[in-house]
Amino acid sequence: MNIRKALITAANPQQRQLPLQMLIGPQGEAKSALRLLLEEAAGAGIEEFCVVVGPGDESAFGEACGPLRNRVHFAVQPEPRGYGHAVLCGRDFCGDAPFLHLVGDHLPVATGQVSCARQLIDIATAHNCPVSAVQPTREHLLTSFGAVGGKLVGGELPLYQVEAVLEKPTPTVAEQELLVPGLRAGFFLCFFGLHVLDGEIFRLLDEQLVAAPDRRLSLSPALHALAGRRRYLAFTVAGQRYDIGAPYGLLFAQLALALAGRDRDPVLTQIVELLAQRPR
Amino acid sequence: MNIRKALITAANPQQRQLPLQMLIGPQGEAKSALRLLLEEAAGAGIEEFCVVVGPGDESAFGEACGPLRNRVHFAVQPEPRGYGHAVLCGRDFCGDAPFLHLVGDHLPVATGQVSCARQLIDIATAHNCPVSAVQPTREHLLTSFGAVGGKLVGGELPLYQVEAVLEKPTPTVAEQELLVPGLRAGFFLCFFGLHVLDGEIFRLLDEQLVAAPDRRLSLSPALHALAGRRRYLAFTVAGQRYDIGAPYGLLFAQLALALAGRDRDPVLTQIVELLAQRPR
Repeated sequence: MNIRKALITAANPQQRQLPLQMLIGPQGEAKSALRLLLEEAAGAGIEEFCVVVGPGDESAFGEACGPLRNRVHFAVQPEPRGYGHAVLCGRDFCGDAPFLHLVGDHLPVATGQVSCARQLIDIATAHNCPVSAVQPTREHLLTSFGAVGGKLVGGELPLYQVEAVLEKPTPTVAEQELLVPGLRAGFFLCFFGLHVLDGEIFRLLDEQLVAAPDRRLSLSPALHALAGRRRYLAFTVAGQRYDIGAPYGLLFAQLALALAGRDRDPVLTQIVELLAQRPR
Repeated sequence: MNIRKALITAANPQQRQLPLQMLIGPQGEAKSALRLLLEEAAGAGIEEFCVVVGPGDESAFGEACGPLRNRVHFAVQPEPRGYGHAVLCGRDFCGDAPFLHLVGDHLPVATGQVSCARQLIDIATAHNCPVSAVQPTREHLLTSFGAVGGKLVGGELPLYQVEAVLEKPTPTVAEQELLVPGLRAGFFLCFFGLHVLDGEIFRLLDEQLVAAPDRRLSLSPALHALAGRRRYLAFTVAGQRYDIGAPYGLLFAQLALALAGRDRDPVLTQIVELLAQRPR
């Protein structure tokens, strides 16, 4: 499996400004969230990118790409018909080949030296099948994510064969349908915003679109269908995802980037000073 | 002294996007930096605002004003001729009356319940003269600020009669000309980005413009001239200023706002979790 293309979705009308937000990257350089995502993917071997945007957003997003600009294509989602539909807008670009998919409103920050995208691509290449990055996530956060259930695959890595995918399940439903052996009580495997998929996802999305043409198209039902047809893995990536659209999301994304980067010490020092200046 | 007007400068071509940056305010609401500044001033009794912007920026800034929009006037600085020149662009709006001046790239966060703007306006009203908010600032940060020298005024408050103002002095020059009794060694009184001024500043700026029409016009020399003519005070405000254009400036401004506001506890909890997730 040779993964050369990446698809980034950034067309949600409520979230389309998020990839344009400026942050300071691990090397201390000011970069847009979009550029950080492109660099995450490029560092894992991705050569060509497609960003799905809302109408009229190409130019602002083009400027936010940085030096990778000339390797970035744009696909426009003409109407906000859901996240799954946005993914489907990347079909022409991706074709049938496996591709890396990143969501434009989440920033991955690896725990160690190997980027989250690289970890995922290594797994997908080794197992030659679709893989979603997941993260054990507290029950009360289930309302923000898609979640998977499945069984542990033997081996050293926290790798699961996915059997079910549900979008933003209630804790009760999750307990019934998404239990995963080996997780702490009250935790579920939620999507990290990073997947390796291939052309089959477009066929599945298309089927769902045909079945309910007036509904917003979500990605999770298509992934659920994928799990029923093929070996499809979930991998607990060594890192965290930061939802930059959540309250204080930019703050914590920036903090995580700083703590993972070269400015860790001065930033920690300033945090301690700030805490000292602001007792309750 | 009745202070009803505020002048906010935001025309520096390198900094003009800063007031549009979104932050979460002390009440947990997403607001632009500009809106936070307007609310800081409105909370201290300001009724009318003028924002000095670069050409073409009125509409984006108008949208960033929030509910105070209809009390905000814009003055355009046609060319980037310096900070002092930007202040001068507010002359028609301010007239001769005393006004509050805030810089658009710094966010003040009070230590206690009384806002920084309110503290400053109270001092100016009580003493019936121009006052600049200052903050004891470490020597190595002198390159970022205007700094004042002067003598302590009797009384309970950290109040100084200004005798000299220098823009971004070197430590050597500051030690010779800006020593202030009672400050810790290695600290100088630097501007906080918050002043109460009146029509005289425009006459002084105008004189400096006429004397050197081709130079960028700075504010500090006019304030220095002001100190030579009239009683002009500096006040160590109870609060901190956050330069949102500095590296990690938005991070620390956001952190300070969160720690000063209703989300202090959940934000502190998340910081501790994040630090635990990110050991060196």
